Amino acid sequence: MLRAPSTLLTAVPRALEEVRAAGPLVQCLTNTVTVNLVANTLLALGAAPAMADLPGEAGTLAGVADAVYVNLGTPGAEQRAGMLEAARACDTLGRPWVLDPVAVGPLALRTALAAQLLELRPTVVRGNASEIRALAGTDGGGRGVDATHGVEESLDAACAVAVRTGGVVTVSGPVDLVTDGTTVVRVANGHPLLTRMTGGGCALGGIVAAFVGVHDDALEATVAACGAYTVAAERAAQAATGPGSFAVRLLDELALLDAPTLAEAVRFA
Amino acid sequence: MLRAPSTLLTAVPRALEEVRAAGPLVQCLTNTVTVNLVANTLLALGAAPAMADLPGEAGTLAGVADAVYVNLGTPGAEQRAGMLEAARACDTLGRPWVLDPVAVGPLALRTALAAQLLELRPTVVRGNASEIRALAGTDGGGRGVDATHGVEESLDAACAVAVRTGGVVTVSGPVDLVTDGTTVVRVANGHPLLTRMTGGGCALGGIVAAFVGVHDDALEATVAACGAYTVAAERAAQAATGPGSFAVRLLDELALLDAPTLAEAVRFA
Amino acid sequence: MLRAPSTLLTAVPRALEEVRAAGPLVQCLTNTVTVNLVANTLLALGAAPAMADLPGEAGTLAGVADAVYVNLGTPGAEQRAGMLEAARACDTLGRPWVLDPVAVGPLALRTALAAQLLELRPTVVRGNASEIRALAGTDGGGRGVDATHGVEESLDAACAVAVRTGGVVTVSGPVDLVTDGTTVVRVANGHPLLTRMTGGGCALGGIVAAFVGVHDDALEATVAACGAYTVAAERAAQAATGPGSFAVRLLDELALLDAPTLAEAVRFA
Repeated sequence: MLRAPSTLLTAVPRALEEVRAAGPLVQCLTNTVTVNLVANTLLALGAAPAMADLPGEAGTLAGVADAVYVNLGTPGAEQRAGMLEAARACDTLGRPWVLDPVAVGPLALRTALAAQLLELRPTVVRGNASEIRALAGTDGGGRGVDATHGVEESLDAACAVAVRTGGVVTVSGPVDLVTDGTTVVRVANGHPLLTRMTGGGCALGGIVAAFVGVHDDALEATVAACGAYTVAAERAAQAATGPGSFAVRLLDELALLDAPTLAEAVRFA
Repeated sequence: MLRAPSTLLTAVPRALEEVRAAGPLVQCLTNTVTVNLVANTLLALGAAPAMADLPGEAGTLAGVADAVYVNLGTPGAEQRAGMLEAARACDTLGRPWVLDPVAVGPLALRTALAAQLLELRPTVVRGNASEIRALAGTDGGGRGVDATHGVEESLDAACAVAVRTGGVVTVSGPVDLVTDGTTVVRVANGHPLLTRMTGGGCALGGIVAAFVGVHDDALEATVAACGAYTVAAERAAQAATGPGSFAVRLLDELALLDAPTLAEAVRFA
Repeated sequence: MLRAPSTLLTAVPRALEEVRAAGPLVQCLTNTVTVNLVANTLLALGAAPAMADLPGEAGTLAGVADAVYVNLGTPGAEQRAGMLEAARACDTLGRPWVLDPVAVGPLALRTALAAQLLELRPTVVRGNASEIRALAGTDGGGRGVDATHGVEESLDAACAVAVRTGGVVTVSGPVDLVTDGTTVVRVANGHPLLTRMTGGGCALGGIVAAFVGVHDDALEATVAACGAYTVAAERAAQAATGPGSFAVRLLDELALLDAPTLAEAVRFA
């Protein structure tokens, strides 16, 4: 089923304006590799990141945050406990939260943790095709953070995960897929340079959290997040001479992006 | 009480020259979010950062460092033990050290840790208005890393903390406040882009440590650090198109900054 | 003994082409300070970094990676266990791996860990002069990450370590030294800006792992890695106005570097 593009074309820029106006507090429990990028992309967008991830603090912050982002990239023992604490608080309070199941499938600790977290009904799950397939039990996942499957090969898995959580699933790739298990939306602004910097997916995960923190319709919020992020990336790529200057310019473009530009540039496939 | 501006106008550029000449070894026990930026700003300035933060090593390094920077942003169990070990070594040896009480107040682990560390007499405490108020017991702090109070609303709290530690307190904001409990200095070179990148405060905290590592008068050293950092930030902002290019240019400007430029550009409010 | 320059001049650009063609999966167990840079330099080069460093996952990933990079910069308890697990897997499977003994000598935890890891026969050891001397037992090492000895003062130590591991040792500095205990090669493209950004050595360590992951002759692979990295750095320095813009441009130049440019620019001393 396809949501009417006209509805989305209105909702996407409005959601961006809501993020700018509210400056949502986004708690991030994320990996040590790209935590700096996640914080900086949220700040550039106009959100307020807070990275408290330890048990004894994670639940407290989840109680006051507008949304929570949980990323399994480097799940140390304290982080695993903090993630469960935060996700339980979200589940109890009805707080929107995003799960990013980095490299689940081949690696044991995070695969077991992802199964526990999935029970706590993430508002959105964001991953690459291999991760979403692994989460659905379709197969054993990719090699590390790289998808070994195409986005469309994960459509059934994405729908299955969405049905299980009662939430939204988005699969990142050249075309981003967003589904709530029945409706499927494809956002076609992906740029290859996003795969040449580390954290291209993590940064999007944090941004999805910012959007679901202010916009109640989680499918629209996720589509808007994918659109805002990849439109900014497209514009950054035009000014870049390689992956280093691209990552820098991406922050500038996220800060510069306005609703009319987004409405004009976002493409649905 | 105001220290004579003429004294400060001489001391500030001289302190920068002392940092350049000595290349102080600054041990940093800091958060995983902005640790890279803290190291890079110190290197750009001409200092030598060393990030050993584990118990069993932290005290050893504090014994040979010129100054130590302790930042509570992501205080895991090992880091908490390492911070206490390093701060105790500093207290015993009379080594200058800087405490950055990130997000104390609402979050339990770091609030308890900050209370312990405060007993070990940090040479300088650097924070935003909400953190300094929480440290003084004035109120419960902000939401995460964002100050919900203006700098001037923290003046009494800053003086109270300075009196308690026998050291200096600096409150970061559009105008940076520096006090030893009696003298109050205000440095007015703050730039809004410093709040659009993560670690704007952490980087200053590391730089304060570099200055107190070479310049004996802690009030002058802290004023000089705030001046050097925010003057570099002002110059970076002129060349930036957003928060990404600003952060990159800030490193370049910290490396380029010389004493005459600093003397001319620093403003006292 | 000197390997014939003509052999190296052929091998170096060919090894770069092999990295580009294979996109080796490089597992990194590295420090929280520069982990983002290590991942980004590998991505820029065309390799696929994966940063799993926890016991229970580290050995699994080592079983499928093309090479493993172990860096002792911030060796928390979980990381120490993960490093041993990964290195044991490498030793058992004959998987190439690189040890980067950051700040060994003065600091106890990592010095003990380095001694254990050295028994697991790293394919390459990369460090600065003080670290290699400390590893060889020549003296107590530098202060933190800074070398207090010149590269040539570590030649005997480098050869001794290479003989002990049966592998290659490279000492980084203005001129990079590479030896297998008998042959000695010097690559003379080092640039001072590499010491003004944090992780200049760590990034090279990851790149050495990428090269030994695809090129069987470890001495040639290490020379090629040093050459590719420092030639990219030289080119980045020409476009930089300071350490911030240098680090950004370094990623762009690593991505742009091709085999003919490398062959022309690499210099043997």
